[in-house]
Amino acid sequence: MGIIYGKNPVKEAIVSGKTINKIYIQKNMKELQEILKLAKEKRIVIVESEKGKLDKLCGNKNSQGIVASVTDYTYCTIEDILEVAKEKGEAPFVVILDKIEDPHNLGAIIRTCECMGVHGILIPKRNACQVTDTVEKVAAGACSFVKIARVTNITESIKYLKENGLWIYGLDMDGEEKIYKAKLEGAIGIVIGNEGNGISRLVKENCDVILSIPMSGNINSLNASVSAAISIYEVQRQKNSR
Amino acid sequence: MGIIYGKNPVKEAIVSGKTINKIYIQKNMKELQEILKLAKEKRIVIVESEKGKLDKLCGNKNSQGIVASVTDYTYCTIEDILEVAKEKGEAPFVVILDKIEDPHNLGAIIRTCECMGVHGILIPKRNACQVTDTVEKVAAGACSFVKIARVTNITESIKYLKENGLWIYGLDMDGEEKIYKAKLEGAIGIVIGNEGNGISRLVKENCDVILSIPMSGNINSLNASVSAAISIYEVQRQKNSR
Repeated sequence: MGIIYGKNPVKEAIVSGKTINKIYIQKNMKELQEILKLAKEKRIVIVESEKGKLDKLCGNKNSQGIVASVTDYTYCTIEDILEVAKEKGEAPFVVILDKIEDPHNLGAIIRTCECMGVHGILIPKRNACQVTDTVEKVAAGACSFVKIARVTNITESIKYLKENGLWIYGLDMDGEEKIYKAKLEGAIGIVIGNEGNGISRLVKENCDVILSIPMSGNINSLNASVSAAISIYEVQRQKNSR
Repeated sequence: MGIIYGKNPVKEAIVSGKTINKIYIQKNMKELQEILKLAKEKRIVIVESEKGKLDKLCGNKNSQGIVASVTDYTYCTIEDILEVAKEKGEAPFVVILDKIEDPHNLGAIIRTCECMGVHGILIPKRNACQVTDTVEKVAAGACSFVKIARVTNITESIKYLKENGLWIYGLDMDGEEKIYKAKLEGAIGIVIGNEGNGISRLVKENCDVILSIPMSGNINSLNASVSAAISIYEVQRQKNSR
């Protein structure tokens, strides 16, 4: 991940199609309107920030009121993920992350997905950890092999996956069905929620079934990357046992 | 003396009856009232402090306005762990960590063990991560509930567990048997190896069976805490499915 700052460099980055995580702009900078228009057309997330934040991001250089955080990681589209499954002649298996914040969790989940035959991962553009250097390091090389799509709206993406025949399972402590009792076959999407708050209400309502992992302790809350690993394993176990 | 910080970890420490010397709270933090009430009921000394002091105490991590200084983690013995199982009327289920080095992995494994009915964990005294502040924080309160024994020699401990009727399974990429095909019942010990080197030769030779988790990617190496979670889950799944 890198930082680009200054009007012309950021404009170049947008026009050239470089993957931009976010653009930070200083409040009330009228001369940035043209760049912002370009950025909005490309659906890049724009964050209004104080000058101090921008200075910090670009190492106290002259940012001219605009800083972009860019990445070498190339995201794909949901269509790409479904295409991968099709090429392999397998039923699509997608993991949907509803606002994972911790880069260690995101990295660990990407690594597990790569090892265990998941075709792709969806992450939201906003309020969630993106594929940063730390994530790539924790994922231990897996980012080069797993398809990851950044989406504007997780709920809309779930609807799209359902239209494409996927059955969407949410993972939640209060899930009505124990995961190993569910018949996990065919085209599957598994939704993992935020570390503190779980799956958001609207996303949960759009899941076909909410599953739980049986627990028997005092804490009764598994780490997000552990919940993801267990549910991915369970899908593959059932597939291999058939 | 150790330090616990963050709302949930401190709350867990109070509820679990851990010995707390003092609780330091940041001034004017209204959202801490519930924890303070609990602490007062247990007659724990509460000290109002400046944010700077709290930051210093917890090594500039995010304290969420609350830090507890606690006595060192109290390890137990292997006998204690077998006793816990006996008291519960359950077949012993022990997780043996052969030189886990990363505190994030150890913390995550402790948390998973607590949530999923493991009676205790063995860690070696040397060349392995011990229960540090970071481990306790990552374990999100689970260290107060799970029995952890520090042993001098993992191989000797495995022999002792075998004499007590446990069947010892090692987890390894090259394992001869797929984990979901093994009949995991009765008294069980599961050995998880070091992050880089897996299970050491001598320990492996003392396992009854080496199991593998089926993988289908390019990386083919799961994170140690993920391997632990999947194998613990598989034991409980089989138990619940019988």
